[in-house]
Amino acid sequence: MTLSAQTTEIGPSQLPGSLDYADGTFAGMEFGEVGRAAAFKRSRPRVGHISFLNCLPLYWGLAKTGSLLDLDVTRASPEILSAALAEGRLDMGPISVFEYLKHAEDLVVLPDIAIGSDGDVQSCLIFSKVPLDELDGAKVALGSASRTSVRLAQLLLGEQIGVKPQYEVTEPDLGVMMRDARAGVLIGDVALRAALYEAPRLGLRVHDLGGMWRDWTGLPFVFAVMAVRREFLAREPEIVRRVHEDLRIARDLSLQEIDLICEQAAEWEEFTSETLKDYYLNGLDFDFGPRQLAALTEFARRVGGPDAGFPADLRIDVLGMNPQGQHRG
Amino acid sequence: MTLSAQTTEIGPSQLPGSLDYADGTFAGMEFGEVGRAAAFKRSRPRVGHISFLNCLPLYWGLAKTGSLLDLDVTRASPEILSAALAEGRLDMGPISVFEYLKHAEDLVVLPDIAIGSDGDVQSCLIFSKVPLDELDGAKVALGSASRTSVRLAQLLLGEQIGVKPQYEVTEPDLGVMMRDARAGVLIGDVALRAALYEAPRLGLRVHDLGGMWRDWTGLPFVFAVMAVRREFLAREPEIVRRVHEDLRIARDLSLQEIDLICEQAAEWEEFTSETLKDYYLNGLDFDFGPRQLAALTEFARRVGGPDAGFPADLRIDVLGMNPQGQHRG
Repeated sequence: MTLSAQTTEIGPSQLPGSLDYADGTFAGMEFGEVGRAAAFKRSRPRVGHISFLNCLPLYWGLAKTGSLLDLDVTRASPEILSAALAEGRLDMGPISVFEYLKHAEDLVVLPDIAIGSDGDVQSCLIFSKVPLDELDGAKVALGSASRTSVRLAQLLLGEQIGVKPQYEVTEPDLGVMMRDARAGVLIGDVALRAALYEAPRLGLRVHDLGGMWRDWTGLPFVFAVMAVRREFLAREPEIVRRVHEDLRIARDLSLQEIDLICEQAAEWEEFTSETLKDYYLNGLDFDFGPRQLAALTEFARRVGGPDAGFPADLRIDVLGMNPQGQHRG
Repeated sequence: MTLSAQTTEIGPSQLPGSLDYADGTFAGMEFGEVGRAAAFKRSRPRVGHISFLNCLPLYWGLAKTGSLLDLDVTRASPEILSAALAEGRLDMGPISVFEYLKHAEDLVVLPDIAIGSDGDVQSCLIFSKVPLDELDGAKVALGSASRTSVRLAQLLLGEQIGVKPQYEVTEPDLGVMMRDARAGVLIGDVALRAALYEAPRLGLRVHDLGGMWRDWTGLPFVFAVMAVRREFLAREPEIVRRVHEDLRIARDLSLQEIDLICEQAAEWEEFTSETLKDYYLNGLDFDFGPRQLAALTEFARRVGGPDAGFPADLRIDVLGMNPQGQHRG
């Protein structure tokens, strides 16, 4: 089952060079050769889009406004997009916060738009058989491969709650996880669903990583930023400005038309349109302003160091913002 | 330079299984696991879309109407899509006519929509230094890998014009081709451009394969049909009906808004909006009715046989049409 509207998935090594169209074979349809002869037009910017449910509203907005046609979009999983942007196979796009922090020297964060939560996110959860402060030395299953969420869970349990569990990676299935473990971390819609259906049945406590982070720091949490490669920004500032504006307009339109989007998506997804709407409006937060910059800085400060692959006092460049998150100029 | 609005290109072996989302890594963003647990919702139909300029209007229409969000779209080159549909990695989509004919037993053609021309197509051309009837024994360069267009050119030269040239595959560059050859076949936008700029400068005659075919047979030509896998149609007739309707609505909307599409595309393409509009409205023909069915039947009759991989009297199944191209029931 696919979980986004659009699901063209490609492996990292198959990300397109934008010129690779020389092998088409329909009569009258091959256009691959033109890049070779004519460089007098600019190429469309290579932009990543997460092919999962959380980014569906953004895609809807880009489609409805028509700006999708100005982009050379690669839809893929967050992992693949993060690597592609870090390696320069994309010019702009979403990148997991942990990956961004490791490649901050090559990237500039776009303001106004990101993927995060301001409080409970609904899809990034710790399920536990006991109160969290009883998890010292207990087995905690990590049903997620995400460095960002795993690091966030460990940070919160270790420093907010003050326990040192034994972590163990398992498959992301609540039933399997809770057979051996006292608690487990799940993310994504498997987490959304588990909180709705399985946790109550199993009598588990549910703790939201977004909510715990805000209780602890007073800040929102950012799971992925939208970033542009520094060299692309230097070369094509006007294109970056336009794509950034297109993304903001798409986001705003999709929030206006959220009922329509959720009804359409609910036809294919295993969630009701009400659940989706609550997730989009009350769980996820697509904003990036001074508070999100503070959150990013705070997360880097708390998890940075030699093991993380970036320093705790990392400089975070946000387009048009000074380090305090105020707009420049 | 990319030549479509959207250019996610993937190799044949990387076409997604629609369930392959288990490796996402953003916190709160992995949705790949849900397919494993919940099969109570249907998957979106896996539909191909040609990532080239000729299909841009269709994509625009799907985006603007929002039906893009009901499809699991794979955008790729025609060659890759043809193979994917033939091998069952897509449920529906465009397929090159030659490939369709080879796999007709597994596929049902959708009526009303296809990619062809009724007369000159503008992008499927023979360039020649001499009148075509002087090409007997002469070198003719094939600057195209498309079986359909190559077969069409050979058919027309051999049986309409009555010459037997020596064919030779070359790179699709008019200058290179005409160094050694007396004539050359080019398709796609390299052909469009060559006809506009290079052919007049080189003093070459330009012959349109779509026009020649119509002069000869009185029929339009179909380069690609939209088809659905027979087994998918049997299992999901209602989804097929809806996708078919979405495609037709998208096509109709895009023809209404063709000025807008061409202006937007001309920003990125090496053609003016006027050239694009002429190509979309006067070159390409997105229709499939009784005349297109007759054209397909006629092409199969003329090129079919043991060498082609399909019989000349092949049965062509079109959804809702009898073999004479009349709507059933």
